[in-house]
Amino acid sequence: MEQRVCGSNRIAGCNFAIYPMTDDFVQVIQSALKEVDTSKVWMETTDIGTCVRGRITHIFDVTKAAFLQAASTGHHVVFNATYSIGCPGDTSGDTYMAEDESPLNAANSQTIHQEAAGMFSLYPMGGGDYMDTIYSQIESMKQQGIEVSSVHYATRLDGDGNSIYNGLEQVFTDVEKNGSSHTVMTVTISANSPSTKGGKKE
Amino acid sequence: MEQRVCGSNRIAGCNFAIYPMTDDFVQVIQSALKEVDTSKVWMETTDIGTCVRGRITHIFDVTKAAFLQAASTGHHVVFNATYSIGCPGDTSGDTYMAEDESPLNAANSQTIHQEAAGMFSLYPMGGGDYMDTIYSQIESMKQQGIEVSSVHYATRLDGDGNSIYNGLEQVFTDVEKNGSSHTVMTVTISANSPSTKGGKKE
Repeated sequence: MEQRVCGSNRIAGCNFAIYPMTDDFVQVIQSALKEVDTSKVWMETTDIGTCVRGRITHIFDVTKAAFLQAASTGHHVVFNATYSIGCPGDTSGDTYMAEDESPLNAANSQTIHQEAAGMFSLYPMGGGDYMDTIYSQIESMKQQGIEVSSVHYATRLDGDGNSIYNGLEQVFTDVEKNGSSHTVMTVTISANSPSTKGGKKE
Repeated sequence: MEQRVCGSNRIAGCNFAIYPMTDDFVQVIQSALKEVDTSKVWMETTDIGTCVRGRITHIFDVTKAAFLQAASTGHHVVFNATYSIGCPGDTSGDTYMAEDESPLNAANSQTIHQEAAGMFSLYPMGGGDYMDTIYSQIESMKQQGIEVSSVHYATRLDGDGNSIYNGLEQVFTDVEKNGSSHTVMTVTISANSPSTKGGKKE
């Protein structure tokens, strides 16, 4: 069960998984993660997925790199994640809050140019003034060339993979800064899909 | 952007996707969905996933059937979904609220015995008395033979696929009934994974 104990620090975390739609899925995942430097985050992997915890910067740096590395194999891959900060809190991974803000994978990630289609939903459950923050961040994503559209229960983003992640990190960071004590964001990003955008896949 | 307009009815919805980790992923998805009767829900599929809307009963009936049918192919498949009810609301799919409560796929689904490993998080964003509801439902899942454990940001469920879905439907339904005006639940369920439970996959 979710614990209802609030920690005092601002450790962020993310449960994520990469789904390569290929018989070689194990190899795609393993080779992608081999390219990602995870030394600034706490990390645990199970049969269902991976949990990373630490500073917001590194959580996004590591998850963006994992997706881009997997996508760069050319296979159809989907990345799914729930980012969380605030209550419920606990202590595992706390020591990683001492890391500096310098992202370890940014340079590598920037060399990967990958078209992607994403969907995100933001759940600011701890108050704060967030709607203006979200709208202004959406505006900023559009100016970076990301196509933004509304779908049921979510916002759709189409464009460059790096830009999409940077936008997601910014909106998550800003909502937290503006006073939401508990923020959750769900993200699905797809690359190399054989389906036409917006078309009928199934 | 998420609309902040609240509808008056209690239409539920779900964005979901099935990820078969095989070169034949398109065929696995298509053949699974062919076995699912979706005539009591509004449905739209894009390159990122599928959205279904209607009564809670049918939303769970259809998504459970889609997962079980895909898993019954024997491939490693992961089902990912966000269930939502309440604000933000809109009208598409409203006509499906007139359907009766009789689920169309329950009989077929019950013939599929599939071990599965799931993770869910519940976000009751609209108040209500939900903690006791959740705890008592967790107790009831355990009595049905589901192994329940805590992981970061989520609750893990291991056991029979039908039982897991029935438990998820019950907890979502009960939280809504107990007064949460806007409830979101995220679910990830994996079947036929080559990884050992709790082991290191990546």
